[in-house]
Amino acid sequence: MLEKTTRMNFLYDFYQSLLTPKQRNYMALYYLDDYSLGEIAEEYGISRQAVYDNIKRTEAMLEEYEEKLSLFKKFQMRTELFQQLKNAISSDNHSKEQLLELVEQLERLE
Amino acid sequence: MLEKTTRMNFLYDFYQSLLTPKQRNYMALYYLDDYSLGEIAEEYGISRQAVYDNIKRTEAMLEEYEEKLSLFKKFQMRTELFQQLKNAISSDNHSKEQLLELVEQLERLE
Repeated sequence: MLEKTTRMNFLYDFYQSLLTPKQRNYMALYYLDDYSLGEIAEEYGISRQAVYDNIKRTEAMLEEYEEKLSLFKKFQMRTELFQQLKNAISSDNHSKEQLLELVEQLERLE
Repeated sequence: MLEKTTRMNFLYDFYQSLLTPKQRNYMALYYLDDYSLGEIAEEYGISRQAVYDNIKRTEAMLEEYEEKLSLFKKFQMRTELFQQLKNAISSDNHSKEQLLELVEQLERLE
């Protein structure tokens, strides 16, 4: 569950601009502010089931966007390469060729 | 017009997965294969106006996605920073600090 929460937080971060205001509100309360379904239902004066259905649909949409655009996956791959690049720069025995190869790996992710 | 074609080619590249198959077909013929509206209309047995309307709507959708996700804008900014980083690595008087600063600028674009 924690892993899913982390993933949904990232996907929300990348794709929230593609959601409707209502979808954004429910997702932010549930995933960022840790409200329960019952609390969100009370806040908006709708049924717990309606909140649940909306959040499930939004989660599926976020996964569908990720399937199509891979922004989170590419972010993770770039993060790993940025770390390797910083480690290589900081080490005392790196070569220019090694650094350029890492930059080119990053460019190929575009 | 050439500038617009280049921009549409990039936006199409970034967001084509979010379009319908029909939208993708028309855009690819018009922007990538340089078909005229009349040729596309003939190919699909529909009016030239219908092709025109579909392409205009798709262009607006691509601009809307770019407005929301800025993938093309970020790509351009990263491309510029990658070039600076490669130049710095290749020069003989770079410092570790200068390279790390460029990598951090790249990371802040995420």
